[in-house]
Amino acid sequence: MSEIRKHYFLSEYCIIAEERAKRPSDFAGAGEDTGKSGYENCLFCGGAEENTPLATAVYKNGKIYADTPEKRVRNWDFRCFPNLYPALSPAPDSPEHRENGLRAEPAYGFHEIIVESPLHGRRLEDFSGSEISGLMQVYRDRTCSYMTREKVLYVSLFKNSGKGAGASINHLHSQLLALPFCPPLLTRELDVIRKKERCPYCAIFDKEKASPRMILENSEWIAFTPYSSVGPFEVWILPEKHVSSLGDCNDRILFALGEILRDILKSYGRVLGNPPFNYMFYQLSEAPEYHLNLRLLPRISVNAGFELGTGIYINTISPERAASYLRGDFTPEG
Amino acid sequence: MSEIRKHYFLSEYCIIAEERAKRPSDFAGAGEDTGKSGYENCLFCGGAEENTPLATAVYKNGKIYADTPEKRVRNWDFRCFPNLYPALSPAPDSPEHRENGLRAEPAYGFHEIIVESPLHGRRLEDFSGSEISGLMQVYRDRTCSYMTREKVLYVSLFKNSGKGAGASINHLHSQLLALPFCPPLLTRELDVIRKKERCPYCAIFDKEKASPRMILENSEWIAFTPYSSVGPFEVWILPEKHVSSLGDCNDRILFALGEILRDILKSYGRVLGNPPFNYMFYQLSEAPEYHLNLRLLPRISVNAGFELGTGIYINTISPERAASYLRGDFTPEG
Repeated sequence: MSEIRKHYFLSEYCIIAEERAKRPSDFAGAGEDTGKSGYENCLFCGGAEENTPLATAVYKNGKIYADTPEKRVRNWDFRCFPNLYPALSPAPDSPEHRENGLRAEPAYGFHEIIVESPLHGRRLEDFSGSEISGLMQVYRDRTCSYMTREKVLYVSLFKNSGKGAGASINHLHSQLLALPFCPPLLTRELDVIRKKERCPYCAIFDKEKASPRMILENSEWIAFTPYSSVGPFEVWILPEKHVSSLGDCNDRILFALGEILRDILKSYGRVLGNPPFNYMFYQLSEAPEYHLNLRLLPRISVNAGFELGTGIYINTISPERAASYLRGDFTPEG
Repeated sequence: MSEIRKHYFLSEYCIIAEERAKRPSDFAGAGEDTGKSGYENCLFCGGAEENTPLATAVYKNGKIYADTPEKRVRNWDFRCFPNLYPALSPAPDSPEHRENGLRAEPAYGFHEIIVESPLHGRRLEDFSGSEISGLMQVYRDRTCSYMTREKVLYVSLFKNSGKGAGASINHLHSQLLALPFCPPLLTRELDVIRKKERCPYCAIFDKEKASPRMILENSEWIAFTPYSSVGPFEVWILPEKHVSSLGDCNDRILFALGEILRDILKSYGRVLGNPPFNYMFYQLSEAPEYHLNLRLLPRISVNAGFELGTGIYINTISPERAASYLRGDFTPEG
């Protein structure tokens, strides 16, 4: 059974995806290392292509290929394939149903893995300029590819890096979920944005460009710690040009995105010692009012009962101070 | 500096509380055990009263006492005192200010620790009936005490148990934060509730009482896994009587609450092997439309990039299956 369920009375949703874990014993050991993080038997390594589902897209020397049942593409740069344990499926096994006024819909959608290097242990920080901009092009390409699918209304693209950030396999990769509805976080933002005269993100760009929270800028993007950061060292990366999704970005914008993203990851490494982290693209291809942004969150604090019970985040370092460390104004022990 | 900041354009808030951690090196080691969890030098143990701030309330044999600078109360049952590293303060050191249209307010409020036993290593599951109902009375008493303070508009009462749930000290305790504003989660709920003819929680009570998600009931409360659970084995505890806060509960209701809470914690231990968990009271003393509820969440899965980026939760066990385990229909390995 895999289904999308709506909250009793709020516009909040869960995906029940039991294929991803089966017994309580799977949970009892959730805090322990599963041993899946090593190089041996890594499903994502170059050479292990037979151990994954058929690739949906394989990027190699700037061209796109696809696996066939007879032949897997080798010597790739980036490789995309369906998640073996998908939260969403193009052919969900559960029909729509209602139970006494409660709604559940089949968990329709796509869940893809984007492996970002055939080599185990590589890190985005060490990518060359052409490698990182190649990856940004893959992100754009996969976003656009799924947005044209029937019934897909949102594409969530994100990276979980490190066990503390929810990664179960320790080989450079990101994930993409294509959803049949717009997520509540985006809906809530869009409702407010549509009532404004000016795009709030354009206003944020102007405000933060000269603020004490600025970290880095290049020709197209700024990186800064947001004024109301939900956790220590949260960073937002925002394009100057009002674009709504990766699909609206030309190659020059993507190249600059890759550079600034790589530089922020380097600064995390320098200041925080390679913490587990997530990054998430916020984009709405179908809503020109929306302003694409990328958010990074090192997972170095725990959201506890207060955050869960109120939705208010306690942050133990001001974004101004975090930005000064990430800029390199001080050494880590300064 | 300690202040409450509002999001650029949404009704979302953060508390910047730098007293709670100072340097990046404090974050770099965030994943490691700090050694503060042992019995030795535990600040919360009976006999160590001098090592904490003066108690605001000490519960002993059904009576309430307070420490004086000259004399700390000994041999207590429950002991409440201000958090040494408060996120909120009755005398915040930061004035209200605005920076280029961005709002920050002094982090006014109260942050209290409720130590639930003088003995290190005690667990709520092992409390006697009178001990657990005594604790529920403390919860009610402290909630009411802070709700009458000037400028307090919300009392958040919660437990972090275990490092994975955000607890930094491994001695039975809960926390209370008294806030000068209503948190966004509650505001959002209340906005919807006020548009309904009937209380949605009263409707949930009726629906879940006979559902496959029911776990336990007694004369006053039901415990069930919510239809749209945000994580594995999430449990809600809901009173049949429409009361808005702990302050509205008589002793009989509180006694029954203690019993059902203890039984759910026992079932977590049996099924999940004593996982880290949080529980949070959702209450609104000033809004009679609201319906008090208590939510428990074992911290056995990680909210990763998808949850952070969309607000949608992937849950790998259906609430129906989780309830069947918690009821004891199957053994953990069944």
